[in-house]
Amino acid sequence: MLSFECDYNAGAHERIIKRLAETNMEKLPGYGVDKYSESAKEKIKDLCKCPDADIYFLVGGTQANETVIASVLGNYEGVLAADTGHVSVHEAGAIEYTGHKVLTIPGHDGKIDAGELKQYIVDYYDDANHEHMVCPGMVYISHPTEYGTLYTEKELQDITAVCGEYDLPLFLDGARLGYGLMSRHTDVTLPMISRYCDMFYIGGTKVGALMGEAVVFTKKNTPKHFGSIVKQHGALLAKGRLTGIQFDELFTDDLYFKISKNAIDMAELIKNALREKGYVFYLDSPTNQQFVIVSNDKMHELEKDVSFGFWEKYDDDHTVIRFATSWATTKEDVDKLIDIL
Amino acid sequence: MLSFECDYNAGAHERIIKRLAETNMEKLPGYGVDKYSESAKEKIKDLCKCPDADIYFLVGGTQANETVIASVLGNYEGVLAADTGHVSVHEAGAIEYTGHKVLTIPGHDGKIDAGELKQYIVDYYDDANHEHMVCPGMVYISHPTEYGTLYTEKELQDITAVCGEYDLPLFLDGARLGYGLMSRHTDVTLPMISRYCDMFYIGGTKVGALMGEAVVFTKKNTPKHFGSIVKQHGALLAKGRLTGIQFDELFTDDLYFKISKNAIDMAELIKNALREKGYVFYLDSPTNQQFVIVSNDKMHELEKDVSFGFWEKYDDDHTVIRFATSWATTKEDVDKLIDIL
Amino acid sequence: MLSFECDYNAGAHERIIKRLAETNMEKLPGYGVDKYSESAKEKIKDLCKCPDADIYFLVGGTQANETVIASVLGNYEGVLAADTGHVSVHEAGAIEYTGHKVLTIPGHDGKIDAGELKQYIVDYYDDANHEHMVCPGMVYISHPTEYGTLYTEKELQDITAVCGEYDLPLFLDGARLGYGLMSRHTDVTLPMISRYCDMFYIGGTKVGALMGEAVVFTKKNTPKHFGSIVKQHGALLAKGRLTGIQFDELFTDDLYFKISKNAIDMAELIKNALREKGYVFYLDSPTNQQFVIVSNDKMHELEKDVSFGFWEKYDDDHTVIRFATSWATTKEDVDKLIDIL
Amino acid sequence: MLSFECDYNAGAHERIIKRLAETNMEKLPGYGVDKYSESAKEKIKDLCKCPDADIYFLVGGTQANETVIASVLGNYEGVLAADTGHVSVHEAGAIEYTGHKVLTIPGHDGKIDAGELKQYIVDYYDDANHEHMVCPGMVYISHPTEYGTLYTEKELQDITAVCGEYDLPLFLDGARLGYGLMSRHTDVTLPMISRYCDMFYIGGTKVGALMGEAVVFTKKNTPKHFGSIVKQHGALLAKGRLTGIQFDELFTDDLYFKISKNAIDMAELIKNALREKGYVFYLDSPTNQQFVIVSNDKMHELEKDVSFGFWEKYDDDHTVIRFATSWATTKEDVDKLIDIL
Repeated sequence: MLSFECDYNAGAHERIIKRLAETNMEKLPGYGVDKYSESAKEKIKDLCKCPDADIYFLVGGTQANETVIASVLGNYEGVLAADTGHVSVHEAGAIEYTGHKVLTIPGHDGKIDAGELKQYIVDYYDDANHEHMVCPGMVYISHPTEYGTLYTEKELQDITAVCGEYDLPLFLDGARLGYGLMSRHTDVTLPMISRYCDMFYIGGTKVGALMGEAVVFTKKNTPKHFGSIVKQHGALLAKGRLTGIQFDELFTDDLYFKISKNAIDMAELIKNALREKGYVFYLDSPTNQQFVIVSNDKMHELEKDVSFGFWEKYDDDHTVIRFATSWATTKEDVDKLIDIL
Repeated sequence: MLSFECDYNAGAHERIIKRLAETNMEKLPGYGVDKYSESAKEKIKDLCKCPDADIYFLVGGTQANETVIASVLGNYEGVLAADTGHVSVHEAGAIEYTGHKVLTIPGHDGKIDAGELKQYIVDYYDDANHEHMVCPGMVYISHPTEYGTLYTEKELQDITAVCGEYDLPLFLDGARLGYGLMSRHTDVTLPMISRYCDMFYIGGTKVGALMGEAVVFTKKNTPKHFGSIVKQHGALLAKGRLTGIQFDELFTDDLYFKISKNAIDMAELIKNALREKGYVFYLDSPTNQQFVIVSNDKMHELEKDVSFGFWEKYDDDHTVIRFATSWATTKEDVDKLIDIL
Repeated sequence: MLSFECDYNAGAHERIIKRLAETNMEKLPGYGVDKYSESAKEKIKDLCKCPDADIYFLVGGTQANETVIASVLGNYEGVLAADTGHVSVHEAGAIEYTGHKVLTIPGHDGKIDAGELKQYIVDYYDDANHEHMVCPGMVYISHPTEYGTLYTEKELQDITAVCGEYDLPLFLDGARLGYGLMSRHTDVTLPMISRYCDMFYIGGTKVGALMGEAVVFTKKNTPKHFGSIVKQHGALLAKGRLTGIQFDELFTDDLYFKISKNAIDMAELIKNALREKGYVFYLDSPTNQQFVIVSNDKMHELEKDVSFGFWEKYDDDHTVIRFATSWATTKEDVDKLIDIL
Repeated sequence: MLSFECDYNAGAHERIIKRLAETNMEKLPGYGVDKYSESAKEKIKDLCKCPDADIYFLVGGTQANETVIASVLGNYEGVLAADTGHVSVHEAGAIEYTGHKVLTIPGHDGKIDAGELKQYIVDYYDDANHEHMVCPGMVYISHPTEYGTLYTEKELQDITAVCGEYDLPLFLDGARLGYGLMSRHTDVTLPMISRYCDMFYIGGTKVGALMGEAVVFTKKNTPKHFGSIVKQHGALLAKGRLTGIQFDELFTDDLYFKISKNAIDMAELIKNALREKGYVFYLDSPTNQQFVIVSNDKMHELEKDVSFGFWEKYDDDHTVIRFATSWATTKEDVDKLIDIL
């Protein structure tokens, strides 16, 4: 059975496993102050061209989202996100559990529009009853989005401008950031993200690590006592080395970028094959996730040989399915998939 | 200046003030176990034809909503409501502050549709990832809605049937319940509401009391230690007599219903006048709130003589405004308003 | 049956009832922006000699405590209080429900000691693991305390000094503030409290009002969007007039102080009688609550004629009981009580 | 520099690293439903002699504590724990962040006493005001405790009996469980723990794993939708294999017990050496943590060659320090330590 159902079905890149093994019996301090964590942070600062960055390693995406959002927002504030955003739909209410509302604006293939964002905020302040409504306190975007799409630099600039106008921090969920940065169809770089966003994270779980997300505060704006807050959220790893070593390795010799490129190359092969074979795309994704609309009969036929993601019902006879590649996807498996398609 | 901006701009019905004065120096136990609270509860049980009802008096609507919803839901559950529902929009995130998401379905003039409700729940359970989504745990409706509209008995039955099928408690926000029950265009009675709903409240704040909402659990389903929960939410009145005496008086000699009828009679006069004068209604409300679309010029002209509610922008040149009557609205003021219109 | 069980068993002072009746049919704006609320705020500012004070009227003590504490603390912070403090023991976990720990230091007859407070904070910062502990974020005291005792000006100064040193806001719970201010054994005044505390509240529920606590922020330090936060906590009264009118009347012609003095005068009569008759005091209270240790036999004998507070078991044969006077206590009832004693 | 400062300063047992490497490129489903997680669960059920056990793998101890406690307690309930318990002091308020109070009873060398537990509960229900207090809803103990001490079977039985009498679930924090089970001075076994406790966890982080705690619900009492709750707490690992493989290996060929025994053997060597050399023990610990009282001069001397835990100030001239062994401690390092001592 071929596996294209998601980008977190393998372990970690072999270099990471090797590095964990090599350092395994070293005695290191806990809670993220070990030398590997420090080294990883320095490398990330360099890559971001953001010497002031303050970096924390958390375990997973939902944890990163809820810990950051809860610590950045005031009690009376909510977070603005696309209605299709991960925090809006697929985190089992983790944001609300911290006491904050997710305020939604329309997602367009997963992205929000700066104009609509501004309109939401203007309408809020124009409303005579806005003290009885939840105050927008920050903006959440994902890049790539849940639909694999990417913001352009211009779009990021426009969102940043709106955020600046209303003093709303911009938070970018980069659970799949590597795949966005290595897309053939992007003009957005890591330093740009550091510049345009107030905080973001670089995903490890889906890009070569066993687990781990590197949260970056870019503007000397780390919430006070953030370490305590991480602990309070049950999110502090005793053996901080585990994320430190992984990120240190991911950012040695461009490993993060090279393995992200693999996922993109493999996705492009699949995309071309799908196009040639006449599959109908649900949307045009420039990253490692490809969404196509297939008849239910076709879907059941494919299911025999390949695992893919069931995305959503398209109509009574058709379904949107997703093929995801990753750092671990091989050319061999892609060729087999293309044969099956 | 005429006052038609809302239904909570006067004090309390004179009989309530009189009763508070008469009982004022009696020494009574605190926290809602005084004889007046007990008497009021008995009267409500009788009116609801629900001898098993368990009743608590809270201070306001948002407080009643958040305390009931937080105590009924499991940790992992959210409350389903119309996207225009009070809990969805106008409670400053009070529900989310208790850790729960408000899950929205489309409001149709403020009401939800049983079919759409069912579809939401079916889609949730059909979704392969539903464990990563917030589980619908109860249903919230308001009657009258925020738009003054009313459910028919058939509509309530249909919603109750869906709720029963999926074991979801149905909670009815009756902040303006009296105005709904005394509408000339309703087939819904208090005993029906007790039968169809698992919990609801009878609004006092907007219907003749200084403050107070009577929360009714109808199915021997009061959350365990509800008294403690009320205290925990900062919602327990030391002098429970204050709500007890008011509700006892409201349900003596049908006062609640008589004063509600006054609001309806006054609203009907205004509605007829508006219709005759060619005003365009935003929607057809059978209760004490009337919404009309006026040109901005007209609105500014009216503003000189009468206070009304600014509801929402209709288009660049028009606005939806609201005229609200109440138990305290006089025929004299209505005649003046009609002259001005 | 004589009633000395608490200070909230009567309604409101007759002047308040009269004022509510007189203003009853006036049409007033909601949510606390009516003219009576404004007038009451001005009077309180004057009495506090604190022109910068920002004042909000909430409904009850637990509500005031949890709303203020939750809005002042950072996410990672807890509130320091006496282990016998109201927020520590008798609010059904309302503070914890907002996500914050109550950090306790020993209560001495209900009061905290500045030296012990300082030691707690020093120990916290000295602890190598303090990032894994809850950071002290503010200090809560009550005056009078739950045991009727009072801080001296010197004690308040010392606590304020410690708070200032560690940048911790000082919050004073004045649920029975009138009885403290009118004690014959105090050197603390309202302007002092305004000066030494960052926020405090003047209790109405136990001092002549139907309900209501006036929360005072004294240092231009009102939490941002506090109005929204009040709404979010279910604590915003639609008819803000209800608290506004009551406090406006309480602070007209010194009513608040005169009726507080009545409670003190009555308590002193009881205290003297108890002393003469050889009762053993549990502690020396200079306010309206008197605590004595009686044999269980005596307690059961007294129970036949008078309601009092059962405070706590003293030993197997004795119990601590409380006699409370209030603004509503009459000389006639006190004489009867003394006869019975 | 010798490392005896804690039991989480090394990576993972080499067999775990090897197993992670071997399985690394297998494509496995996420979120804990992979075959290794299933296998680990079966092994744990067998070892616990608890075929009905329901098992979840979480990442760390604070996370396990707060997720379990928040999902087991009713809204109005708190958790009873020793005042020295990890949840009481060292989790940065993680329990309170979920809205629940930690109710404390005295810790005796870290342990609670069944009699004092019962007295607390009796006093709670006897208190006339208990509806205004936080209701005890479950009991938390740690075994070994934070002080390395252990409950006897009789003590566990007595606590279980009290819990049963008041229908309070008993939760055992086994962050160092292996070290407790392999102590030379215990009569408590894993099947006993499964029988006496309603839920507990087997710590991996401190006993040979990179991270991970196995939460065991023993009485068909898993909270409803626990998977969603784990996600809601940001505690769901995408690559559930990571904990599954580690626990599967730990419970293959008794690895967990063998490596735990190593820690005990090494601790006994140190303990004997300390005793012989005349060190004064702070308390008698039968597990991997040894606490001694040393003069500050001695402490500073030792600091030059060995890392140990600074526990607490004993008096102005003495300090309590901790030596911790672990699965990774070597005889060679212990010999060196003994030389230094």
